[in-house]
Amino acid sequence: MENFFNPQSVAVVGVSDNPANLAQGIVANLLKFGYQGTILPVGPRGGSIFGLPIFPRLEDLPQAVDLAAILTPAKVVPQVVETCGRLGIKRVVVESAGFSELNDAGRTMEEKIRALLRRYRMRLVGPNGLGLMNMETGLALPFASLEPPPRKGRIAIISQSGGVGSHLFAWMAQEGLGLSKFLSLGNRLDVAENEVLAYFLQDPASQAVYLYLEGLADGRELMSLARKASKPVYLHAPNVGAETAVIAHSHTASLATDERVLESACRQSGMLAIKRQTEFLNAAKLVGQPPVKGSRVVVLSRTGGEAVVTAYACRQWGFELPPLSPPLAQLLRERSRAGIIKPTNPIDLGDIFDFGVYEEIMAAVCRDPEVDAIIFHYGPLADFEIQRGREMARELVEQARAAGKPLAVTVLISLGEEEFLRETLGVPVFHFPEDAVEALAASRFLAAGGEVAAAATPAPVDAASLAALLPPEPGFLSLAPALSLIGALGITVAPWGPAATPEEAVAVAQKLGYPVCLKLAAASLVHKTEAGGVLLDLNDEAAVAAGFTRLAQTAKDALPAGEEWQVVVMAQVQGGLELLLGARRDPVFGPVLAFGAGGIGTEVLEDVSLRIAPLSPAQAREQIASTRIGRMLSGIRGQAPADLEALSRALAVLSQLMLNFPRIQEVDLNPVRAFPGKEGLLALDARVRVSEQ
Amino acid sequence: MENFFNPQSVAVVGVSDNPANLAQGIVANLLKFGYQGTILPVGPRGGSIFGLPIFPRLEDLPQAVDLAAILTPAKVVPQVVETCGRLGIKRVVVESAGFSELNDAGRTMEEKIRALLRRYRMRLVGPNGLGLMNMETGLALPFASLEPPPRKGRIAIISQSGGVGSHLFAWMAQEGLGLSKFLSLGNRLDVAENEVLAYFLQDPASQAVYLYLEGLADGRELMSLARKASKPVYLHAPNVGAETAVIAHSHTASLATDERVLESACRQSGMLAIKRQTEFLNAAKLVGQPPVKGSRVVVLSRTGGEAVVTAYACRQWGFELPPLSPPLAQLLRERSRAGIIKPTNPIDLGDIFDFGVYEEIMAAVCRDPEVDAIIFHYGPLADFEIQRGREMARELVEQARAAGKPLAVTVLISLGEEEFLRETLGVPVFHFPEDAVEALAASRFLAAGGEVAAAATPAPVDAASLAALLPPEPGFLSLAPALSLIGALGITVAPWGPAATPEEAVAVAQKLGYPVCLKLAAASLVHKTEAGGVLLDLNDEAAVAAGFTRLAQTAKDALPAGEEWQVVVMAQVQGGLELLLGARRDPVFGPVLAFGAGGIGTEVLEDVSLRIAPLSPAQAREQIASTRIGRMLSGIRGQAPADLEALSRALAVLSQLMLNFPRIQEVDLNPVRAFPGKEGLLALDARVRVSEQ
Repeated sequence: MENFFNPQSVAVVGVSDNPANLAQGIVANLLKFGYQGTILPVGPRGGSIFGLPIFPRLEDLPQAVDLAAILTPAKVVPQVVETCGRLGIKRVVVESAGFSELNDAGRTMEEKIRALLRRYRMRLVGPNGLGLMNMETGLALPFASLEPPPRKGRIAIISQSGGVGSHLFAWMAQEGLGLSKFLSLGNRLDVAENEVLAYFLQDPASQAVYLYLEGLADGRELMSLARKASKPVYLHAPNVGAETAVIAHSHTASLATDERVLESACRQSGMLAIKRQTEFLNAAKLVGQPPVKGSRVVVLSRTGGEAVVTAYACRQWGFELPPLSPPLAQLLRERSRAGIIKPTNPIDLGDIFDFGVYEEIMAAVCRDPEVDAIIFHYGPLADFEIQRGREMARELVEQARAAGKPLAVTVLISLGEEEFLRETLGVPVFHFPEDAVEALAASRFLAAGGEVAAAATPAPVDAASLAALLPPEPGFLSLAPALSLIGALGITVAPWGPAATPEEAVAVAQKLGYPVCLKLAAASLVHKTEAGGVLLDLNDEAAVAAGFTRLAQTAKDALPAGEEWQVVVMAQVQGGLELLLGARRDPVFGPVLAFGAGGIGTEVLEDVSLRIAPLSPAQAREQIASTRIGRMLSGIRGQAPADLEALSRALAVLSQLMLNFPRIQEVDLNPVRAFPGKEGLLALDARVRVSEQ
Repeated sequence: MENFFNPQSVAVVGVSDNPANLAQGIVANLLKFGYQGTILPVGPRGGSIFGLPIFPRLEDLPQAVDLAAILTPAKVVPQVVETCGRLGIKRVVVESAGFSELNDAGRTMEEKIRALLRRYRMRLVGPNGLGLMNMETGLALPFASLEPPPRKGRIAIISQSGGVGSHLFAWMAQEGLGLSKFLSLGNRLDVAENEVLAYFLQDPASQAVYLYLEGLADGRELMSLARKASKPVYLHAPNVGAETAVIAHSHTASLATDERVLESACRQSGMLAIKRQTEFLNAAKLVGQPPVKGSRVVVLSRTGGEAVVTAYACRQWGFELPPLSPPLAQLLRERSRAGIIKPTNPIDLGDIFDFGVYEEIMAAVCRDPEVDAIIFHYGPLADFEIQRGREMARELVEQARAAGKPLAVTVLISLGEEEFLRETLGVPVFHFPEDAVEALAASRFLAAGGEVAAAATPAPVDAASLAALLPPEPGFLSLAPALSLIGALGITVAPWGPAATPEEAVAVAQKLGYPVCLKLAAASLVHKTEAGGVLLDLNDEAAVAAGFTRLAQTAKDALPAGEEWQVVVMAQVQGGLELLLGARRDPVFGPVLAFGAGGIGTEVLEDVSLRIAPLSPAQAREQIASTRIGRMLSGIRGQAPADLEALSRALAVLSQLMLNFPRIQEVDLNPVRAFPGKEGLLALDARVRVSEQ
């Protein structure tokens, strides 16, 4: 990466002096941003551009080249890359479009280029991107004219889409936020996000990294980088759901929308999930500010209305406005002319025109260790206040800085003061109170950091036992082997036995005791209930025998001809709460565990929590507690809790299973029953899907 | 109101030539905004300001005055108002603070002023506000210097807080949005929001009205105005929750956070609930544009990344991106050079440099009746594209306008083009795709309009029967009369009977049949279960007798000495789903009906829907359907539905009860059981609270 961001010389390939030539935009940007290295335009028609000669061929260049930026028609690119290889140019940035994003011919060209990269040991950024920028050196490779130009600053951007990235740093410039480095991944033919992220995380010029990704190359590696990062990482990945939503087959899968997997990944690894670009613009204003270590906010507001709006926003984002400390309350009482300031939080500075009082209040707030962040709403009421107001603001900002308190400001009445506060005082200025609170919440999340990854532990069952239970062909297991597998994992299944005839079914039922239920079991029968394959509350021999006959008919009607089937007889379990425990493989993040409300509540209650494996029992406890049904299980309104220990152990065991046996694609236990005040759990149904051997 | 907004002459009271005098800001604004009437500064020290003489006293004014704007110390205000009254000045605007918002003395002064208003038949805006503005006449009464100044336009603002209102119209000016009229309510001593809203709704200069309110004077009247309005009404009321959350006593009350009541009020009356000021700024950009009549959006994007972001946002806000119409798909295939445009929605205009193609595509989209809104992401890639890009944009905007299609634009790469599109073409320009989609969603909501209010119908029980069931003193009814009341309303209660001795309890139980449950009933016992006042599953005489004795002990331990109690014996109901049906009085919006998950699920499942009365059975059906438990009741995964008819009738009956009998403060039926596949419902518990007679 270093060689991409710090070349001494750059060849720009594809330049002509035709005003509609796009590659000349690269040369223009290098000049505009003051690139200090050598700029070498290359284009077959020669001539000159912005006073620089255009060399007809790469071979004609008078000096060695560290990096080539290529913007030619796609079909020429492989040949240009090969020439670069021959000439020893080890870094190429391809901005041309028309590759794998377009059609098969483009995909073939990418394969060809990939082979060239291997042959010449070269690295490539793109194609179909906007290149990269290093604001410290003026290396600006985008071909588009950037207006307003990005400012030099501390935020690094990795964007799959050049358009989204450049749109964002244009708005960053509007908002006074500066860019350190930028890289547009494009089609990720070679360089992908994790490598760039690792580089930016150790780059001294970059204090935070934003990623815009339409697909994730390796989600687990990304999580691992984010976990280790000491800088804020923001992840905006709006398309992950669409890309990976295809694999929805059975229950767990269809619930586990990939957006929630992504959210879990972010939460677990401490990345801030960005859902809306303005969220990032707000959050980024607090980069370089002291972190928000808790939820206690003091609000100083020159108008009561903004104080109310802020209090509402604090409630929305989980901040509290604690009562003022006794010394501060005392100060406010002393300073209060005719009770104009009430010693409450938010502090309504209403009619105080003596800005010295503001400074005293701020000093007291800064001394209070129980304050995690400060919001200040300020605006001069009339022109005569502007000058003194600026002095006061400077004093307030310095106090907060000295005290290490995060401070967020909004400017009222005279928006012109925004610029003074932002540019001269370097304080984060927000347009509206909600923006300030949203940003503080982002900082609080980032300051809390991600959790440590749980250790991956040995498989809960040995390979030989497992092999005996899995069919050789891919697909769903029939119910009996699925239940056996679950039992082998140490997860209790309700007492059951298989039956191939009505007589066998009656015999099993008598062993189990009445009432029982009967379930038709066949590999192709994934949703048994809907197919009429489940009969409940059978209380005697006659009912069981008749039930078997009915299921035999269902098998005949509903199953593909010749498919093997049997009937599972299971003890009918009374009471308890119905749960879902499941696991599946996310194509980006690998094994994901699901816990939530089961039975008919699964779809309707929308109460499922997801976590990416590995999962320790303690993390499983948190996962359970994050659902509404989990809170019910923990004992509410005087009820005894259910066996949360057994449930979390079961989730951790599923995590180990998924990590250790890649053939297992999906496990779905629904319902599992747990019982308030009783130990243990009972799985009543199991779906297991395996891939090819 | 007309006389407030169109005075021929304005006296500004409290002016001096001291640079720190705030009232001179009013004069400055009148001059700055070009007020055409006569400006008459008044202040005891005389002199002159901005070339105008300052008259020492109101009595000295050389001509009749239509309106007086007062910004003097609070203590002088009553006297100034009285002088105005004596001189026949019928309209006063008081901007001074220090009244009821400050202390009791201020409250007393307000009373005094109120009496003067009555005596002299005057009207007053304020105090403690920023006055009002009429952008058509230049009447600008705020004392604060407004920077940037509001633009003249079509949005009217009513704001309780002057700070919030002026902050907003400053940002409106930044965003190219204009103001028609503004009124800052302040303490609402006289003029309150509904009167102003009614005026703005018929004001030809105002095409939309935004209200910022910290408390609502009359919520039902506001709903009624909004229902009748033919203009968008936006309501931002962040403090309503805090103000009215005090009355949380029993179950329904504590669930019914007032924020959700407010949301129901907005939904029912077709007001857009604003939760964040930027939401309004986005929504306001579509004022004056064709309404969004459905959810089918076509996206034209010059960059693939913004198309992805837009598709994600559309999913979030419930828009669909339908496949392109056959003629449009055909056009794209024809226009496609080497397949560069795929005939999919979003339409990625990627590498098309011929803007004529954009125009052809737009024409085809505009002809398609299946398209409800269009989003266009545009940016010139290089300077040479700007001029032709502008011509193309003009053509696109004209096409959309002619076709009556709402069009939202974002500008990429060169943000400078935002201004051209906004100012010259007058098209709504958004900073980010999410902003555009949010605004389209707001327009879609407003276009759908509120629902017609249900007719209030006669009471479900006559006054005499009701009086016999209600105690004379305020508070909760004991369980037996509460159950009787519910039964009298025609809502089925599970079979029950009262018992004062163990023998009576056994006799009732034998009549009902076993199993039964026993409930301790006393007026002060609101949460019976937590107090150990409910015994379930009693299967024989001995258990019932022992249970009675146990509850007698509980009564002795838990109830205030001497309080009357009895035991209610109730048939133990098996199966079904536990629901909550309830009603309470919201101080702002009046009777509110609650429906949702009951029993222990009430708190945990957070699945309660609220609606403001009156409520027709059809509306109750919708209310039920809006909950997750309601969807379960309607029959999922092959289950038969429960008796939704009976449930909606019960809610409608509670609505009638609350509307007809103001003494009833709260009714809480929890649990009510409903049974999939069976008719009817059974209320198992009832709490009823009444106010004084």
